[in-house]
Amino acid sequence: MIAYEDIIAAKTRIGAEALRTPLLHSPFLDEIAGRPLYVKPECLQRTGSFKLRGAWSAISAIPDAVRASGVIAYSSGNHAQGVAYAAKAHGVPAVIIMPADAPKLKIDNTRAYGAEVVLYDRYTEDRDAIGDRLAEERNLSLVKPFDDERVIAGQGTVGLEIAEQADELGLDSASVLVPCGGGGLTSGIAIALERIAPGLVVRPCEPEDFDDTSRSLLAREILANASGGKTICDAIMTPQPGNLTFPHLSRLCGPGIVVTEDEVLRAMGLAFQRLKIAIEPGGAVGLAAALFHGEELDTPAVIAVASGGNVDEDMFSRAL
Amino acid sequence: MIAYEDIIAAKTRIGAEALRTPLLHSPFLDEIAGRPLYVKPECLQRTGSFKLRGAWSAISAIPDAVRASGVIAYSSGNHAQGVAYAAKAHGVPAVIIMPADAPKLKIDNTRAYGAEVVLYDRYTEDRDAIGDRLAEERNLSLVKPFDDERVIAGQGTVGLEIAEQADELGLDSASVLVPCGGGGLTSGIAIALERIAPGLVVRPCEPEDFDDTSRSLLAREILANASGGKTICDAIMTPQPGNLTFPHLSRLCGPGIVVTEDEVLRAMGLAFQRLKIAIEPGGAVGLAAALFHGEELDTPAVIAVASGGNVDEDMFSRAL
Repeated sequence: MIAYEDIIAAKTRIGAEALRTPLLHSPFLDEIAGRPLYVKPECLQRTGSFKLRGAWSAISAIPDAVRASGVIAYSSGNHAQGVAYAAKAHGVPAVIIMPADAPKLKIDNTRAYGAEVVLYDRYTEDRDAIGDRLAEERNLSLVKPFDDERVIAGQGTVGLEIAEQADELGLDSASVLVPCGGGGLTSGIAIALERIAPGLVVRPCEPEDFDDTSRSLLAREILANASGGKTICDAIMTPQPGNLTFPHLSRLCGPGIVVTEDEVLRAMGLAFQRLKIAIEPGGAVGLAAALFHGEELDTPAVIAVASGGNVDEDMFSRAL
Repeated sequence: MIAYEDIIAAKTRIGAEALRTPLLHSPFLDEIAGRPLYVKPECLQRTGSFKLRGAWSAISAIPDAVRASGVIAYSSGNHAQGVAYAAKAHGVPAVIIMPADAPKLKIDNTRAYGAEVVLYDRYTEDRDAIGDRLAEERNLSLVKPFDDERVIAGQGTVGLEIAEQADELGLDSASVLVPCGGGGLTSGIAIALERIAPGLVVRPCEPEDFDDTSRSLLAREILANASGGKTICDAIMTPQPGNLTFPHLSRLCGPGIVVTEDEVLRAMGLAFQRLKIAIEPGGAVGLAAALFHGEELDTPAVIAVASGGNVDEDMFSRAL
């Protein structure tokens, strides 16, 4: 299990390499949400998502001699960019296995951060087999997207900041809505808040047809999504909660909240109009839940994590 | 003249009512700029622009008994929203005189913040005459958009933050590119930096045909723009530098930088793609100068203030 102390250690390793994102606020969004709503814009994080935190935490924890031969990761895009960026900053090579249908911006950026990108078909090929072969051939250290203690601890630094910022605002009771794929960010935040802000309760948020975490929490066991589903929320279309993340989610989180694609697009448009930020679909499910599922919340205030902003112009124009 | 101490006093009055915006960074933008480039996103500020700082500073400085009857301001939009928001938070009425062709979003928001909006035709009517009459009839305190010591001091708090953030980054020599209309933000930042970060030099940035400050700095006297010009940079289409701001600009700033509308739109698109923020045209002239006028800079690094983000969807889509 990951402990609060692991998050503090990750914070020390990350130092100033991750931006301390502010909490944004607009009275117009409060009115829609029916309560004070604060947004943690991790879309402004370096590489455009919170994933840099976990990637930096993991890569900085690998012993120098091992790290020197390089790292490998598989990711639909945001973890890829975080790992590529952190590897480059550490001066080591990175190989990233990405689905061929990932947003072009994410693939291009990953390459631009200096990584070697290997594409695969996510509906027919086994990414793990591809990754295992490359890792063995080149002696690369695997940095998993969420089921890795160092990664979860890194994402948990978002929770440390939320706790501090909520305290500055005098918020001692709030729902913290977190876009949830494999659960690395969600569990990391929940572990941090349990210790230092126990009145802040994490609620995992997911898009329709990818509500594996919400169903797993209800069933008290890990359940998978039906295969073959598609969603505009590419960043969080993970098959099921992680083996490391789920026990934390199960112990610490309130019920999941499931939002529609239309709600996601409306949340993206409102975030542009009222907060002046660009959120990608997968990063907007928490804000969508805050704005349009207020009846599922039982706290006087709400904090939504906007987890990423790596969205193509076409998709963004659709949201506007 | 406004002194550094006035900015510190404004900071104390503003307290936590203004967001301490972060400094954003992207290696992709560094590459275009040809040097490390940091962006201060005041578009994320409450009400969508830095104007909240000056408005709060001014309104909080009016004696209670005087303030109670209300405030009045004229503005193309961002100052309007700042004054409306700050007046509401102080529990006093606000009347805002706005040009009828200001962006609809800005007019709607000003009303939504609780202000009474009076529209006028900026090409045929005299806004000062309208404002003077209303102020007298209702005993309202005028909050000017830039030629007011309290307002300039409030905008100067951006400079305090830039100095702190540059110090954290180890930047002791940089150009600070500031979108310049009447010069309130530009002079406020310059006054703050002179004292606490003398290696950071302010450069006023303007759009073509509204380069009154650049020409005035060269001529060492206040020159006006030709009347009747139009620009997409509505936030900074001011006729000439202010009487209070110009002496500071003249003493403290480097030469102005003039950018094209095409450069402004490209800067907006790159800010969306690389920083995940929405900047309005007038707020993007500093970033445009950083990206496309590097040959006019003589420092190893550059900091661009993105002063506002209140842009309609249509204009933003044009930039994408």
